[in-house]
Amino acid sequence: MPPIITLTTDFGLRDPFVGIMKGVILSICPSVRLVDLAHEIEPQDVLGAGLALEAALRFFPDGTVHLAVVDPDVGSTRRPIALRARGHYLVGPDNGVLTLALQGVRWTAVALAAREYRLAEVSRTFHGRDVFAPAAAYLAAGVPLERLGPVVADPVLLPIPDSRLEAGALVGEVLDVDRFGNLLTSIYAARLAEVPGDGPATVEVAGQPVGGLVDAYAEGPADRPAAIVGSTGRLEVFVRSGSARLALGAGRGAPVRVRR
Amino acid sequence: MPPIITLTTDFGLRDPFVGIMKGVILSICPSVRLVDLAHEIEPQDVLGAGLALEAALRFFPDGTVHLAVVDPDVGSTRRPIALRARGHYLVGPDNGVLTLALQGVRWTAVALAAREYRLAEVSRTFHGRDVFAPAAAYLAAGVPLERLGPVVADPVLLPIPDSRLEAGALVGEVLDVDRFGNLLTSIYAARLAEVPGDGPATVEVAGQPVGGLVDAYAEGPADRPAAIVGSTGRLEVFVRSGSARLALGAGRGAPVRVRR
Amino acid sequence: MPPIITLTTDFGLRDPFVGIMKGVILSICPSVRLVDLAHEIEPQDVLGAGLALEAALRFFPDGTVHLAVVDPDVGSTRRPIALRARGHYLVGPDNGVLTLALQGVRWTAVALAAREYRLAEVSRTFHGRDVFAPAAAYLAAGVPLERLGPVVADPVLLPIPDSRLEAGALVGEVLDVDRFGNLLTSIYAARLAEVPGDGPATVEVAGQPVGGLVDAYAEGPADRPAAIVGSTGRLEVFVRSGSARLALGAGRGAPVRVRR
Repeated sequence: MPPIITLTTDFGLRDPFVGIMKGVILSICPSVRLVDLAHEIEPQDVLGAGLALEAALRFFPDGTVHLAVVDPDVGSTRRPIALRARGHYLVGPDNGVLTLALQGVRWTAVALAAREYRLAEVSRTFHGRDVFAPAAAYLAAGVPLERLGPVVADPVLLPIPDSRLEAGALVGEVLDVDRFGNLLTSIYAARLAEVPGDGPATVEVAGQPVGGLVDAYAEGPADRPAAIVGSTGRLEVFVRSGSARLALGAGRGAPVRVRR
Repeated sequence: MPPIITLTTDFGLRDPFVGIMKGVILSICPSVRLVDLAHEIEPQDVLGAGLALEAALRFFPDGTVHLAVVDPDVGSTRRPIALRARGHYLVGPDNGVLTLALQGVRWTAVALAAREYRLAEVSRTFHGRDVFAPAAAYLAAGVPLERLGPVVADPVLLPIPDSRLEAGALVGEVLDVDRFGNLLTSIYAARLAEVPGDGPATVEVAGQPVGGLVDAYAEGPADRPAAIVGSTGRLEVFVRSGSARLALGAGRGAPVRVRR
Repeated sequence: MPPIITLTTDFGLRDPFVGIMKGVILSICPSVRLVDLAHEIEPQDVLGAGLALEAALRFFPDGTVHLAVVDPDVGSTRRPIALRARGHYLVGPDNGVLTLALQGVRWTAVALAAREYRLAEVSRTFHGRDVFAPAAAYLAAGVPLERLGPVVADPVLLPIPDSRLEAGALVGEVLDVDRFGNLLTSIYAARLAEVPGDGPATVEVAGQPVGGLVDAYAEGPADRPAAIVGSTGRLEVFVRSGSARLALGAGRGAPVRVRR
């Protein structure tokens, strides 16, 4: 099975940055399969990139290398790192983008310090090209993680916002808005059973009531929001033939409450 | 020759949905070549996805698997299906998106019912990941179509709007608008000979006259619309250094008339 | 090592044009690796596509074929060409898009005239599909450049704007604006030493002073522009947590001056 590298960045597709990283990777590991996860992450949105990785990781084979470059502090003292966790590798800046996908699992991390696994010339403006792409390619080619640099015991942990029970309600927030205008929340379906009381759950976003929980998008009302357990196991709020973002005027950070 | 899977969706590239489907596919069929056809189809635009498939199908080798996921009714009773036609395979929801590309050809269709060719856990919100990507991957890996489920005799047929002779004119409509603002019409060049009368053809879009038929974009006037036979064999209306959409204020559904 | 073809176009990703070219390529050369460099180049922006190629070329292995289709004059008398330079191949219209990346190097060029290396039917509206994709695929498959057609001695040269010393200042212009709003200039860092005088360099864009030259984006002030040597060796102007384009109201063609 040829090795796989996924790429997640805020580089967009207008500029050749992603393609350049692929050129570097293919120069080092010609047999690798390259898969774009997301490149239209908002500039510098570390949380957005972490959520993309969280949703995707388990659908790739063991041994896949995930390269994530959302790197506002490129060229500063922030470390470039690589991690091994769940049988996958993750490569990127040590700003939390990699650890978001790894809540509650064990990992081994190293700093990407070994010069022989970087490009000969390293700029201070494009580590995606000069440091991260080579590291990912060498990992895909079979170089052991520990050869890339010294172990790092304290990578930056940027927790994904969670949910909590508060005054009889399960309280969380909107984490992200997808292209359909669906609101992805920090509330996992597994926690809905904790909401005290009887009867069906009711959901509120930014103080506005949302229709009940349905099982399929097609079961939502045509023009009012409803709630659903989305494909990542999180509670989502959607409008069947429209946009929950527009209908509710709510985006990332908006409070979400589930009661009975 | 390694198998090929093309992907056409309305998922956009901001979210990791397309990448996740690729992870599922590569987990099942590691040797497959993946080609993105179009992912910025307007949300829920079944016709737009069908037109992309129609334009692309014949340029891929025999045995290619085309995966198309524009699926507003995911999780409802609409069937997931796969088709074999023209030596190609097509996989997607049974809402017409697959049959648009298959006007006038024979096909065999099956419902994607066999559990062993789905993911172990099937959500009701992301059949692209749980049902369609696995089916496409197993077809690419050589599993016979008939193993995926029972034959379907009546897949949904969503005809592409056509053209007709009416009061001495060939009458059709705008089907789609491409990124250059070119208007793709439902009138095939092959039918232009049917327009009665002598002299050059004149074209009208939404009641507005358009310059005559030219042979190359570079032969159109700089700032007024003209007509051309586009790369799919359909009549197109364009503005050389601009946008016919903007110049004519016309989009999908606008009536098109050709007279002499 | 499997052959590589990169693709750079103004086709966008809404329409299936890029995917169709890939189908043509894979039909001819099934083992090729395909890498997208940039497809959201502004329609007909030959300079933008040339800059993408210039930035990317040297990061791909020898023998890579670069296909660039920004082709406003498709179907006219402009020639389709292919070039060999620096151990790479370039394929596209003879309008300067290919030569931008080849300033100061030697090349061999041919016109893509040989019918056996085109599709059987050649439209006058989509040479990317009918002429350029087949030529790139045959080159990747090992067909010698000279077999594709007669040598061309005078390909169109479209020089990238440069910089000059003028009244004690190094004067250039903004070449491009990237997705982060960074202004890419025509001034190479290597020329900064030519600016006469002592002390740190000061930069001016469209008559507005810009903060001094810093070594990393993270060292720029949070909300005012600063200058940096970007990843292509060119002087760039950026705002750390914002957009230099918005902050300075400057885009392509805006004059840039460096003094001491």
